[in-house]
Amino acid sequence: MATKTAPDSSRRSERSRRAIYDAALALIGEAGYAKTTIEGIAARAGVGKQTIYRWWSSKAEVLLEAFVDLGERNMAAAAEAAGVDPGEARAIPDTGDLAADLKDVLRATVDELKDPQFAIPYRALAAEGIINRDLSVRAVEQILEPGLQLYVARLRAAQETGELRADLDPRIALELFVSPIAQRWLQGTGELTHAYADTLVEYALGGLAPR
Amino acid sequence: MATKTAPDSSRRSERSRRAIYDAALALIGEAGYAKTTIEGIAARAGVGKQTIYRWWSSKAEVLLEAFVDLGERNMAAAAEAAGVDPGEARAIPDTGDLAADLKDVLRATVDELKDPQFAIPYRALAAEGIINRDLSVRAVEQILEPGLQLYVARLRAAQETGELRADLDPRIALELFVSPIAQRWLQGTGELTHAYADTLVEYALGGLAPR
Repeated sequence: MATKTAPDSSRRSERSRRAIYDAALALIGEAGYAKTTIEGIAARAGVGKQTIYRWWSSKAEVLLEAFVDLGERNMAAAAEAAGVDPGEARAIPDTGDLAADLKDVLRATVDELKDPQFAIPYRALAAEGIINRDLSVRAVEQILEPGLQLYVARLRAAQETGELRADLDPRIALELFVSPIAQRWLQGTGELTHAYADTLVEYALGGLAPR
Repeated sequence: MATKTAPDSSRRSERSRRAIYDAALALIGEAGYAKTTIEGIAARAGVGKQTIYRWWSSKAEVLLEAFVDLGERNMAAAAEAAGVDPGEARAIPDTGDLAADLKDVLRATVDELKDPQFAIPYRALAAEGIINRDLSVRAVEQILEPGLQLYVARLRAAQETGELRADLDPRIALELFVSPIAQRWLQGTGELTHAYADTLVEYALGGLAPR
């Protein structure tokens, strides 16, 4: 034992934090948001309730941080798979071809939305957000809007290079291809495929009226 | 009393049916889908449980019919306000100006989504649909898809007159302006205004790339 260094407290904390996130996501997926409690998360994570209350002041805070962390881990895994610097992973790629870049990202989004590890807890959060205004405001601020701002940045760059009309509001423009995927996923109004993602990008950029 | 005609049984049935729909929508809005029961609906409507079971075989069936009825009543009220034949009310107007017709309908949709009489029960249904696959399939079939097919019909007419590209799939095309409204309403990712509805139509028809 003398040759082994005991894990320091920050590593212990990191392990508890990870266990709490995992427990929170598992429970919300199994029981739904309303029935997930701090007590339940603590029991499943094998930590004391007071450990959770030391770091977070409410169930909503723990759960939202667990989702932010899940998003970051997914992003890092995608970056590693693509051989990209994880630091740049959050940005939407800019190869100079807007349509190709958007198709890439939307195809990856479709894959992520169909991955149960992401989809099951996230559907539970989305369901509660529809009827829980406080949670919805936090989820937009901490999860949805930061994701949408990545599209805003990419669309702004395309406005500068002339690939996108300079007179449009990128925050609205992105909704033409992002929201259809969100609605199909949330309401089950259609299949989510790579071909569908491609079609959305083509229709949105080219427009529905004849040129 | 002899001069009064007793209400016949079909009128009594109609009154019970209306009371059941109203009770169902009120309860789902107050308690959520999961906690709404046939017993609760019967008690609030002032009818026996067996009256409900005579007409419907499950809670989902009663609730979905109540929503279909709510949609039809809203449509009829809108038709009356616009001085239109209620029989034609479900169709999207065709004045020959696609952009104007779509803006009209989407503005009305925005108003409806902000009307608590519609929004409160419908949010409860949408929330449950996200995590309840059986309910979601029925809601798409009975409520969402029939509504979307009205857009398909209008877009097909526009393809025939050359206002819309002939090579596109109208069932996907409509999502460019319908889904952004749905996502903002479901997830609270932005304001719902008439100006926003107009912008969506302009961006979708004209396209995001420079012409």
